[in-house]
Amino acid sequence: MADEVKLFRTWSSRYSLRIVWALKLKGLEFDTIFEDLANKSPLLLQYNPVHKKVPVLVHNGKPVCESLVILEYIDETWNEAHPLLPKDPFQKAEARFWAKFNDEKLLPSIGKASLGHGKEKEEARVLIPEYLKHVEEQLEGNNFFGGEEIGYLDLAFGWMVYLIDVLEEVGGTTFINKEKYPLLSKWIQKFYEIPVFKESWPDRDKLITKYQNYV
Amino acid sequence: MADEVKLFRTWSSRYSLRIVWALKLKGLEFDTIFEDLANKSPLLLQYNPVHKKVPVLVHNGKPVCESLVILEYIDETWNEAHPLLPKDPFQKAEARFWAKFNDEKLLPSIGKASLGHGKEKEEARVLIPEYLKHVEEQLEGNNFFGGEEIGYLDLAFGWMVYLIDVLEEVGGTTFINKEKYPLLSKWIQKFYEIPVFKESWPDRDKLITKYQNYV
Repeated sequence: MADEVKLFRTWSSRYSLRIVWALKLKGLEFDTIFEDLANKSPLLLQYNPVHKKVPVLVHNGKPVCESLVILEYIDETWNEAHPLLPKDPFQKAEARFWAKFNDEKLLPSIGKASLGHGKEKEEARVLIPEYLKHVEEQLEGNNFFGGEEIGYLDLAFGWMVYLIDVLEEVGGTTFINKEKYPLLSKWIQKFYEIPVFKESWPDRDKLITKYQNYV
Repeated sequence: MADEVKLFRTWSSRYSLRIVWALKLKGLEFDTIFEDLANKSPLLLQYNPVHKKVPVLVHNGKPVCESLVILEYIDETWNEAHPLLPKDPFQKAEARFWAKFNDEKLLPSIGKASLGHGKEKEEARVLIPEYLKHVEEQLEGNNFFGGEEIGYLDLAFGWMVYLIDVLEEVGGTTFINKEKYPLLSKWIQKFYEIPVFKESWPDRDKLITKYQNYV
């Protein structure tokens, strides 16, 4: 039986793009269902009744939710083409640690620092340089967070590639400059130029409009 | 070379206990370093410079942080004795999904519902029955969340075994009653009676005192 792979996403969801990129790296064919979060489809509610959120990957009728969980599922299920996670348990633990750090610390702080207000915004802006320093260090001696090749942790951090400069513009600030974070800046460029991701980037003007509505 | 395994924890940390239980299920010898979070040791700060938190597992000098990441590390490193995660990628994804649900939804809500105040407390109390219903459903047809044997997801939910009735007493409410959640109630009893966990339970009176100070 041929695999049937469906991805429920929105046009701009940064968690969904991780899955798009993973499926493209694995060379998998898949159907995309674009959701309108103001009017969620009955299928999305059926497949993710707990969180009612995208992304959901449906593989041969079985739903998998939560983007980092989906990445691991994809890597374990289609394990031959382009491995995403390292084989070594310690390196794997490090990749999982930093992906969690991204989701719980870095990404929310950059959101608050660009779109937030008052004390929350100020506090986030203080934290970000230390967070980004940690991230920059993970690239020392490597092309990608995954090493020579792009991998799981790159996909977790991948939202920065297309969203940092949007959030910088909307928030009227700079988070990543080339002098302070040279490795991260180079990584953003390398990630952006990966041929199989070419069609994946959300429209920048639409993103600017979307996030301006949040401020 | 014999493995050197050290666990940095506190006496009551519910995330640390997951690791204690996992190491005991695997039959591993390990040294325990009890931290005082008001006066963290230089070693803890060295091993977990990002979060400065317990638990940290140090295996042959290498630190692994974040309890769910540590559980996967332990299972991958010592994979023969008592497997913690299912082999099947879909079942593994389900276990990871519910562990994340515990950490992000169930556990914080029960904390707020017992120790919080005002609107935050009221909102949490409304959510909990729905959350617990999802958890109860995961036990249908099974002894443990891991199936026939105790596993990764049991350890993630394991804080309920010794802490729910403490939080119920301190918060003056009942979260889990036997009539509404019979499977979860039975699971708590079964988990509590596992022989290798016998020495692991934190002192109940000390827990009551600790959490009363939070209200």
